[in-house]
Amino acid sequence: MKVAFLGPRGTFCEEAARRYFSKLGTVFIASSDIPEIFRKVERDEADRGVVPIENSTEGSVNLTLDLLHECPLKVSGEVELRVRHNLIVRPGMKMGDVTVVMSHPQALAQCRRFLVENLPDAKRMEVASTAKAVEMLRRTRGAAAIGTALAAEVNKMDILVKGIEDNPNNFTRFFVIGRSPAPPSGEDKTSIAFTVPNVPGSLYHALGEFAVRDINLTKIESRPTKQRPWEYIFYIDFEGHTSEPRCVEALEGLRKKAAFLEVLGSYPKARS
Amino acid sequence: MKVAFLGPRGTFCEEAARRYFSKLGTVFIASSDIPEIFRKVERDEADRGVVPIENSTEGSVNLTLDLLHECPLKVSGEVELRVRHNLIVRPGMKMGDVTVVMSHPQALAQCRRFLVENLPDAKRMEVASTAKAVEMLRRTRGAAAIGTALAAEVNKMDILVKGIEDNPNNFTRFFVIGRSPAPPSGEDKTSIAFTVPNVPGSLYHALGEFAVRDINLTKIESRPTKQRPWEYIFYIDFEGHTSEPRCVEALEGLRKKAAFLEVLGSYPKARS
Repeated sequence: MKVAFLGPRGTFCEEAARRYFSKLGTVFIASSDIPEIFRKVERDEADRGVVPIENSTEGSVNLTLDLLHECPLKVSGEVELRVRHNLIVRPGMKMGDVTVVMSHPQALAQCRRFLVENLPDAKRMEVASTAKAVEMLRRTRGAAAIGTALAAEVNKMDILVKGIEDNPNNFTRFFVIGRSPAPPSGEDKTSIAFTVPNVPGSLYHALGEFAVRDINLTKIESRPTKQRPWEYIFYIDFEGHTSEPRCVEALEGLRKKAAFLEVLGSYPKARS
Repeated sequence: MKVAFLGPRGTFCEEAARRYFSKLGTVFIASSDIPEIFRKVERDEADRGVVPIENSTEGSVNLTLDLLHECPLKVSGEVELRVRHNLIVRPGMKMGDVTVVMSHPQALAQCRRFLVENLPDAKRMEVASTAKAVEMLRRTRGAAAIGTALAAEVNKMDILVKGIEDNPNNFTRFFVIGRSPAPPSGEDKTSIAFTVPNVPGSLYHALGEFAVRDINLTKIESRPTKQRPWEYIFYIDFEGHTSEPRCVEALEGLRKKAAFLEVLGSYPKARS
């Protein structure tokens, strides 16, 4: 089994991929960006891809939403990972030696309180990713990086302090994508994309198909269609699998009201 | 009248501000980021602020949505601007002299076709904003910048080619914010934010308040609440003013069903 993830080595995305595909012998392939992950799976260079879809405080990853809609791949799984940041240094370095802290701007912001209290005088240096920051430790004197435990391991660096993030309730959700859908597991979710005609009540009537069948929506998101200004495509996640009768009925009902409807995939709910 | 906009001088946001506040004697104040615009209006250092809220192909500006919800200011107007890019150079430079093209990564991407056809060998250089790119022309040899006509004017540079964007249907929408709401104009829109209890059908029943009164929704967007993971706050724009009876009724109905409801403002519809 070959699994493509968003690189470089040691990203949250690699952590998510390794959590989901824990079987020995799985090969993990670092990809340089999200479109490359989709391409690798489409061209059979990888069996599955793992892509970030949403963060609980930052919101959706728009690029992933757009690609899911544009390509024929199916969502076959989801992974939820708590965003855990670590202060990482070259082996032997101590807190007192740190003069600069490197990381992705978002990670620096998410550890602001820790940095103000523990490293008030260290410079902040923004780099392209947390994994990149850990990679750069080797050639940057006096530097610490904020990154994943996996990045520390991969780069043979030391974790000086674990869990330095300010908010313990920050999660990132990843989708597993593949060429075929997942069979029902008994506790599933389904993701769809659709558009409705631009008349009063059209979204209301579309959602009615789920409400009358007591189907719980876990997410609703809108994105511009890119064809015409101010037209939206809706992305909805609901509880259930496309093989369940009430879900089949809801989707049939929706298909009659929607200008366009696409099932992105059914997949087992992530264990928190 | 003092109007704060997202700087530096020559941004799309300044173009939008000057379009909306065209009266002579208006003072325009460049702000370094979106939170600063909100702060300036809150502290009475500016009478109005102009902030980007949404792009027709890229989607919402999440930071603006979050700030609208967190601060007591009201939306009192909207402006729509077509995204028009220009190839800008130092006076006297010709196409054949250009060895590097500087701009914001999004602007470079939005002019890809033009660049491939006309400047295939010029290097691309990413900078923080289109306005910054035009500013940098003075001290960068052989460079062209992609930016607004206003930026060319402000920096005394030449426009070599007008309208080099690949997509003529790309619009950005701006909100005008102030300390008090706008009176009805006869053709208005209203923006609200709300949350619903996490039970099946709750969003459906909330939208029903608008559907049964034939009130047209022009936008719906969801954002994480930041309080608890996977809880969403909905942002809706609808046609009508909070002083109209059917809008009052819809909002009263929604207030009973929503866990939280806030009217962000009513304002005259933008002329396209």
